[in-house]
Amino acid sequence: MNAPAHPLVIDGCNPSRWDAPGVLEHLVEGGVTAINATTAIWEGYADTLDEIARWQQRFRTRADLIRPVRTADDVLRAREERRAGIILGWQNVAPIENDLDRIEVFQMLGVRIIQLAYNVRNLIANGCFEPHDDGLSLFGVKAVQRMNDCGILIDLSHVGDRSSRHAIDESRHPVAFTHTQLREYFDTPRNKPAELVRALVERGGVVGANAFPQFLPGGWDADLAAYIDGIERLIEVAGIDAVGIASDFCEGHGPEFWDYLGHVHGTTAMWQIDAPLEPTVRGIRGSVDTPLITAALRDRGYSDDEVGKVMGGNWLRLYREVWGDQPAAEPALPH
Amino acid sequence: MNAPAHPLVIDGCNPSRWDAPGVLEHLVEGGVTAINATTAIWEGYADTLDEIARWQQRFRTRADLIRPVRTADDVLRAREERRAGIILGWQNVAPIENDLDRIEVFQMLGVRIIQLAYNVRNLIANGCFEPHDDGLSLFGVKAVQRMNDCGILIDLSHVGDRSSRHAIDESRHPVAFTHTQLREYFDTPRNKPAELVRALVERGGVVGANAFPQFLPGGWDADLAAYIDGIERLIEVAGIDAVGIASDFCEGHGPEFWDYLGHVHGTTAMWQIDAPLEPTVRGIRGSVDTPLITAALRDRGYSDDEVGKVMGGNWLRLYREVWGDQPAAEPALPH
Repeated sequence: MNAPAHPLVIDGCNPSRWDAPGVLEHLVEGGVTAINATTAIWEGYADTLDEIARWQQRFRTRADLIRPVRTADDVLRAREERRAGIILGWQNVAPIENDLDRIEVFQMLGVRIIQLAYNVRNLIANGCFEPHDDGLSLFGVKAVQRMNDCGILIDLSHVGDRSSRHAIDESRHPVAFTHTQLREYFDTPRNKPAELVRALVERGGVVGANAFPQFLPGGWDADLAAYIDGIERLIEVAGIDAVGIASDFCEGHGPEFWDYLGHVHGTTAMWQIDAPLEPTVRGIRGSVDTPLITAALRDRGYSDDEVGKVMGGNWLRLYREVWGDQPAAEPALPH
Repeated sequence: MNAPAHPLVIDGCNPSRWDAPGVLEHLVEGGVTAINATTAIWEGYADTLDEIARWQQRFRTRADLIRPVRTADDVLRAREERRAGIILGWQNVAPIENDLDRIEVFQMLGVRIIQLAYNVRNLIANGCFEPHDDGLSLFGVKAVQRMNDCGILIDLSHVGDRSSRHAIDESRHPVAFTHTQLREYFDTPRNKPAELVRALVERGGVVGANAFPQFLPGGWDADLAAYIDGIERLIEVAGIDAVGIASDFCEGHGPEFWDYLGHVHGTTAMWQIDAPLEPTVRGIRGSVDTPLITAALRDRGYSDDEVGKVMGGNWLRLYREVWGDQPAAEPALPH
């Protein structure tokens, strides 16, 4: 008889500082099976190749805690091994710079999730804080095709409404809002209108409920209940089969991180973000407290099956559909 | 008594291949005082720095034929010296990549004219062949301010209509369509509607009548008369004080140039351009035949003063206003 499987818990987006003390340990302590780990926001080609190289080293030196995830089955392996599975994901297409051929290079190197824009316009799409969003560019339409061709999941969380809709319509595969909330729940361009969530879900996509307090009612003072309310509002719109969780935890980062995010394209001051030192909803310290989300959903009366879908099952279904059967990713060199 | 001044002839945009045999000689043979010489279209930061380095060498090795132009007075010096003045200009902002601080670096290196986008969308503006154009990005508005701050002339020839309008409205200095025609004369997104020309001219801008046959009635078979008709149509809309000439000559280029132009961002095939070997209007071979344009304007009844404005005076007035009193640019090293 097999032991009961460890719960499947997938964090739809986590941009923590990976080399800060304790950050990887917290994932395992919190029972997190896999995360979409942000590995690029404003960084270009060379810097992102270097960051992937650092991850490869980390997969070896921290093999007690983490493993690479390049297939849906890798997520299940992470669960068996009680390690945190690391999905390399980007919050922007900046790393490909001007060259769509690089999409496949990065796919070969393990990148599995790419957001089309981060807050502002790039060569491909408009970000959600641009006052004008004219949809995808000609180059952007080709980029979507290339991501489809090589099984990369497209993320539209920080993308503008019209560019999001354009991408949903252009993509041959389901796409994701990896971390957002309903705009009707809290009104900000960073959250998504119900109509757009429905369009994404109708084509098989998944929406990750974002736990970042700035975009919840109450702002930096939002608590766990406000987050669970947000999950429930998304379930009302998207259905129980299309909602996941997304921590947006920024563990290990200091004030320089907010400064970095507010400088668009990594260079130009655009916004000042006055985030508290630990920008999590009250009642949640970080990854270690992930079980509190599971417990809170149970308290709201969701069944084991429903909780399992929201906590990880829906993300895994989407990953399997979009990524296809890419080769498993064990580091090729000896430990 | 001084000898009568050589006529002032300024070519608003010339993207010829500068290292091809005869190209620089033809400028002098054709009596061209100065040109906006295209030095970047899709190239990035490093490549464009290298291209400027090559120009510095060329200013020394071909000092019998050319001189650098960094001020309006440099244009007058070129006329006195009977050399062709070279204005370093870009048809795209690709060389600054993600960093607006580089605008000033390139200004220090002699770049004086920058087009905000080339046919497609970039971080700053939309190109004229994008199906959707909602104007400049947030980053683009800051880019316009930076170009204003350091006295760089903004060019909108290949920019989309709404981005052009947005730039005209945002810029503190007059801007230019360095090479275009009236859309009401020949209907293509690459030409500009009269309303937009008027908006640019009302703020002190200048429009260069583009001699590239593809965008004239008759297409590749267009003749010199069709080009002069285009100049006249522009004068009707913009007035005699706001129209210049622009050859768009592609001397010395082979088929690889059209392939390059049709690959957006220098990488991605978007358009196939079936240009003839010598894409000039019939009756004009290239820079050597510039006097034929002067003669044709006289034949249409324009006065010496009017011809002088169109052939160069209007460009010089705009350059002086936008560039301000930047330092003259003699190569610092001995020949």
